[in-house]
Amino acid sequence: MMKNQEHKSRREFVLIFKANPFTELFCNYINGERIGSFRLVLASKRLIARSTHFPLQSGFGVLGFERGVVMAAAAAAKKLENGVSASESDGISSVIPGWFSEISQMWPGEAHSLKVEKILFQGKSDYQNVMVFQSSTYGKVLVLDGVIQLTERDECAYQEMITHLPLCSIPNPKKVLVIGGGDGGVLREVARHSSVEKIDICEIDKMVVDVSKEFFPRVAIGYEDPRVTLHVGDGVAFLKAVPEGTYDAVIVDSSDPIGPAQELFEKPFFASVAKALRPGGVVCTQAESIWLHMKIIEDIVTNCRQVFKGSVNYAWTTVPTYPSGVIGFMLCSTEGPPVDFKHPVNPVEVNGIDTPNNPLKFYNSEIHSAAFCLPSFAKKIIDSKAN
Amino acid sequence: MMKNQEHKSRREFVLIFKANPFTELFCNYINGERIGSFRLVLASKRLIARSTHFPLQSGFGVLGFERGVVMAAAAAAKKLENGVSASESDGISSVIPGWFSEISQMWPGEAHSLKVEKILFQGKSDYQNVMVFQSSTYGKVLVLDGVIQLTERDECAYQEMITHLPLCSIPNPKKVLVIGGGDGGVLREVARHSSVEKIDICEIDKMVVDVSKEFFPRVAIGYEDPRVTLHVGDGVAFLKAVPEGTYDAVIVDSSDPIGPAQELFEKPFFASVAKALRPGGVVCTQAESIWLHMKIIEDIVTNCRQVFKGSVNYAWTTVPTYPSGVIGFMLCSTEGPPVDFKHPVNPVEVNGIDTPNNPLKFYNSEIHSAAFCLPSFAKKIIDSKAN
Repeated sequence: MMKNQEHKSRREFVLIFKANPFTELFCNYINGERIGSFRLVLASKRLIARSTHFPLQSGFGVLGFERGVVMAAAAAAKKLENGVSASESDGISSVIPGWFSEISQMWPGEAHSLKVEKILFQGKSDYQNVMVFQSSTYGKVLVLDGVIQLTERDECAYQEMITHLPLCSIPNPKKVLVIGGGDGGVLREVARHSSVEKIDICEIDKMVVDVSKEFFPRVAIGYEDPRVTLHVGDGVAFLKAVPEGTYDAVIVDSSDPIGPAQELFEKPFFASVAKALRPGGVVCTQAESIWLHMKIIEDIVTNCRQVFKGSVNYAWTTVPTYPSGVIGFMLCSTEGPPVDFKHPVNPVEVNGIDTPNNPLKFYNSEIHSAAFCLPSFAKKIIDSKAN
Repeated sequence: MMKNQEHKSRREFVLIFKANPFTELFCNYINGERIGSFRLVLASKRLIARSTHFPLQSGFGVLGFERGVVMAAAAAAKKLENGVSASESDGISSVIPGWFSEISQMWPGEAHSLKVEKILFQGKSDYQNVMVFQSSTYGKVLVLDGVIQLTERDECAYQEMITHLPLCSIPNPKKVLVIGGGDGGVLREVARHSSVEKIDICEIDKMVVDVSKEFFPRVAIGYEDPRVTLHVGDGVAFLKAVPEGTYDAVIVDSSDPIGPAQELFEKPFFASVAKALRPGGVVCTQAESIWLHMKIIEDIVTNCRQVFKGSVNYAWTTVPTYPSGVIGFMLCSTEGPPVDFKHPVNPVEVNGIDTPNNPLKFYNSEIHSAAFCLPSFAKKIIDSKAN
């Protein structure tokens, strides 16, 4: 059933593309600059939402990127949108050649750029564009639909926090489900917990798994743990089929709420998660940035408060290559044995999770508790929705 | 005496400029593109350290920036440095027209860019280039020597943390000295403390003060407090003339350790601060990013540990428009009544500092304590140097 929805969603995407008067203009413009030709798909969604997809034509992909086309596209599209003539000469120079720049309507008016040493992979899966490049100072970088998912230099912060925040908050987690997280980094961190007996992962995009195994062996090492079972498919559908009360913890390692991950931020999904958890089980979902997306966070908190009858908390951490440099997590528990997320009962320092041979780089018990301390502007809004 | 040192330092700068074989090449290259002409000054310093200065010629400044020359210069300089021919055609297109991009050898391989609506001010003081622009999503932005100092949208995080971390850690601060901080934001926050009787500020660059009063009235409002005395001059010299034990707290709101602020990161400066503080007095200095500058931080911690015989601590906070999205603070106390920075004795919630009429946007007592919790990779290094 979810597959049908997915297909439907993709058809709508194409319709939007065809309906957009700027698309053709933009293609012509690109052609005029003798760069090559490609289709630009723009879709507008609820709050924010402009996603760019580039089904690259043969022989065009890598050259296209190396000329900075990904960013040129976003910049030129924005310019057209603002009513500026497509023939204005600075559209194509709106790039840093040799740099990857992350421009999105999810974070308008700002961009973070990484210098590219070499493009290692570029492909289009059924769900998104997948790219890997070697950056000059952040190691290898995984990009989905133009948005950085991880870099070798700072992935530790994200993977360790999204995993140990929930798993250290309950005693002896045994069964864990990961939704998304195709790169394997969350699996790597879950596998540190010796109490865990079974780790299911449901990732929609097999290309993400394959690419991660090839280019990010220190991340995808998570797949090598014998407790892991990979399910390639839609997380929403997977969860619906899970017998009630199966998991101690669910970790939702999703991309932003545009594209394939959109449903993972909606109430029916949270309800499925709650059903799949045992009483007093916990969920941790990626929940955007307090600096950029308080409106999205407000909605997530409201939804979670209605669904999860245990505790509902927001935590955050620093990740330099994510927009605004921070990323947040929604941590909730179902009705049952109470969970006090701020004071972990299963500290990594004493239970063998953080060992001298395989030390954690980022997470520790102090930073666990600190992650729940919010700046006043965010605390005011989240507290009013949460408890 | 410090004025002489400053002049000497500036002469050395010019010498480096003249000695740099890439400078002329770069000028020709720029001229070849009919952009205009200007001097490019490159200076190499200790760890990292490449600072670009653009003494702009008449009629060139704003046009130059609008064509993205600041960034083009940095990119082209880097290219030349790497031995790539100056005639390579992508030097000038290394810009996002209409965007300000922060490129520096302090954070190689990455850049953060803000969309520019309008340049409001551009000038060259005796010490640095000063620029103010209206960004499209971060409000007005103050830039010194190409590095973002504050934006209206996120300045609260920096100003509130650098001020209340030290002032809430001691009871009844009365005399406070601010070094740097010419924008007035720290003064605004110090003035919240009703126990304070006297606030001295020593800022080297009068242009920063004047520009802030003109373009950032909600920040520079700090100057309006009758307890404030502005001293325009060198902070190192000012501190040397301060009678021993004068201040309860010193706040060092400096730019990066290249250019005019370099001495503010060195041991003799910390010794002057310690002398100017009463027993058990506290200092808080800007102390860079754990993600980018652990080596600099290591040096600062080592220096402070030798100078300050009370406690020595490192704290950090999120500021989206600073490189890597975080900034750190060094918090130290002199021998005397012990100071436990992690557990503030003067909480804003109960002493009238945070009021409904004039609420803090970022700082609260929870985030105060959380700021001292460090990721494991940073904790390991800082703890080994600190205590």
